[in-house]
Amino acid sequence: MLNFKFSIPTEVFFGKGQIKVVGEQVRRHGGTRVLICYGSGRVKQQGIYDAVCAKLAEKGISFCELGGIEPNPRIKSVRDGVHIVKSHGIDFIMAIGGGSVIDCAKGIAVGACYDGDPWDLYLRKGEVKGALPLGVVLTLAATGSEMNGTSVVSNLETKQKLPIRMPFLKPRFSVLDPVYTYTVPPRHTAAGTVDIMSHVYEQYFSPVSGAFVQDRLADALLKTCITYGPVALKDPENYEARANLLWAGTLALNELLTYGKTGDWGTHMIGHGVAAHYDVTHGVGLAILFPHWMDFVLGEDTQGKFYDLARHVWQVPLAMDRMEAAREGIARTRQFFTELGMPARLREVGVAEDMLPTIAKTVVEFGEVGVFRKLNEKQVLEILKKAY
Amino acid sequence: MLNFKFSIPTEVFFGKGQIKVVGEQVRRHGGTRVLICYGSGRVKQQGIYDAVCAKLAEKGISFCELGGIEPNPRIKSVRDGVHIVKSHGIDFIMAIGGGSVIDCAKGIAVGACYDGDPWDLYLRKGEVKGALPLGVVLTLAATGSEMNGTSVVSNLETKQKLPIRMPFLKPRFSVLDPVYTYTVPPRHTAAGTVDIMSHVYEQYFSPVSGAFVQDRLADALLKTCITYGPVALKDPENYEARANLLWAGTLALNELLTYGKTGDWGTHMIGHGVAAHYDVTHGVGLAILFPHWMDFVLGEDTQGKFYDLARHVWQVPLAMDRMEAAREGIARTRQFFTELGMPARLREVGVAEDMLPTIAKTVVEFGEVGVFRKLNEKQVLEILKKAY
Repeated sequence: MLNFKFSIPTEVFFGKGQIKVVGEQVRRHGGTRVLICYGSGRVKQQGIYDAVCAKLAEKGISFCELGGIEPNPRIKSVRDGVHIVKSHGIDFIMAIGGGSVIDCAKGIAVGACYDGDPWDLYLRKGEVKGALPLGVVLTLAATGSEMNGTSVVSNLETKQKLPIRMPFLKPRFSVLDPVYTYTVPPRHTAAGTVDIMSHVYEQYFSPVSGAFVQDRLADALLKTCITYGPVALKDPENYEARANLLWAGTLALNELLTYGKTGDWGTHMIGHGVAAHYDVTHGVGLAILFPHWMDFVLGEDTQGKFYDLARHVWQVPLAMDRMEAAREGIARTRQFFTELGMPARLREVGVAEDMLPTIAKTVVEFGEVGVFRKLNEKQVLEILKKAY
Repeated sequence: MLNFKFSIPTEVFFGKGQIKVVGEQVRRHGGTRVLICYGSGRVKQQGIYDAVCAKLAEKGISFCELGGIEPNPRIKSVRDGVHIVKSHGIDFIMAIGGGSVIDCAKGIAVGACYDGDPWDLYLRKGEVKGALPLGVVLTLAATGSEMNGTSVVSNLETKQKLPIRMPFLKPRFSVLDPVYTYTVPPRHTAAGTVDIMSHVYEQYFSPVSGAFVQDRLADALLKTCITYGPVALKDPENYEARANLLWAGTLALNELLTYGKTGDWGTHMIGHGVAAHYDVTHGVGLAILFPHWMDFVLGEDTQGKFYDLARHVWQVPLAMDRMEAAREGIARTRQFFTELGMPARLREVGVAEDMLPTIAKTVVEFGEVGVFRKLNEKQVLEILKKAY
């Protein structure tokens, strides 16, 4: 186990009706003029937007809005937001939505404290020492962005999708009401479940040994997704299923699983490469790529981690040969994604075969990806071809 | 799953050599005059005390000490500490030790902000709105006090052992260096492992249903104890074992397992009743009492939780009858405690049989205990007799 510093300052208000705290929490963190960020009209139809406005107004807090933030959020939206913040004296950012809206809101929060173009920060060209405080009302179980300091943003002009990670981007508070996820369409419920599982896998597959407690916590979150993903698909208003998925999604990426380890994140980098060229839903891309990544990296040296996963999560028979069990675990993962209705091939989501070399080049733009198994351009291309 | 507010502000510096942060962290939280609390001479012999002093001195922070804090810390030590704090203008408390030292330090931290006798606070007679900031250097994997807001203190005169829980008692930072636990004697390593498992059980056995993710996180911590407790006993300087136990102990009682549920805590209340009359090590008392509590509450209505535990943690065969599996899980728990060298009977730790009714009376002094199964005086006495 590696040394680590545990620091999770985000306060989470979890459960039905917790939106009631929004006004007092914004006030507590010094907010007086708020920019509300959101994506689709769903948050307006459902009354979540109005509820947030009402809670802010109750506390005498003024606000303006930036709507229409897209999935795989664009740097253009971040720039638009920064412009509003700077021209309206905004001092607090509220994100209402899923990971894309939150990631964009984080870009705005940090961009507001930077003099140049916010894309510089994603390119590691600019330096910044803080961000505006951020609050979240979450509407989708998926990315974990509601409790971490990461923002991933796409630049359509340069065909790049890049992350920044800064401790001060961790939201001050997040409201997690499972009821707000009742109306998430089946396809996004499934993609969100895959997304959560992928985050767990990225951290589970680590070259660091001896982080047993973290690995078993990973099992717990995977079992939760496997148990409740299908329930939420069949019965969208099942509070227990929605609550367990929502909390698992947050815990999967609030650093709990990664303290004391290093995650792999190679598959995410490949997914980002695909997303830079095609508008593929994040979780859908990962559902296609992960089983192929697993096939690719499974070997005598890596078999142990796959075996443990098969035994603890998929409960393969203890008597099964270790390599056979490892393969069975991968097969069960693939089968589970299929049962969730996920596509299994890149060709099914509109990717053109002759674009695969370009995607591979994008993936390794800043060097090899992955640490459990380092991947160069050739290896990335091989995985992309297998997944095609 | 119940609504909850997640708030874990304590920062943990985990791993070998992390003591280096002590000076800067005390400074960061406004400390200029520190009271260092510790228990036995082990922290001096091992150089931990000197290392803390050196780090404070480097930052120009003055300090004085309160040593000799006993296991099951007494209100007298709290009073002594409060006296020192008030007479020396202390503004920060550093605890070096295990749960007893930390609990006493918390009593001092809050007692310093109260005009009356600190025991009032444990009796819920006094009111207080804050505490001095607290830092911890942990030397024992057991109580989880290093990351929560609970303090349990004994009053030998009134034969009471009572807890207080206040969010502002959560330490500002805790240093967790597994190397510091290398010299923990086997008996305390075993008792600490039981203590961690007991905390998990108290939260696992909840009347709240549908908190699946929390229950599976509980499994993860139990598996960690079962895997590494015996390793640490055989090979005290095994870093991996000590690190996993240390981190599991902290996660077992930093509220992660209990958010969205209510814990039982009946067995702890019985243990506190015993400890109010006899100086029994906390973990030893729990090792004796828990299997008997489990026997007592197992029934058709409670069988499900026992069955899940047996299946997920002890991996009993899936084909086994549910009630049989539930009993097997309890038998395996009892056997594991015995393998750790724990006594199985109260008579083995010096408790007099004719004191059992008095202990039962102490336990229910403030009413029935437990919520998974409420226990009155008669039922507590029955458990005590079975455990005798």
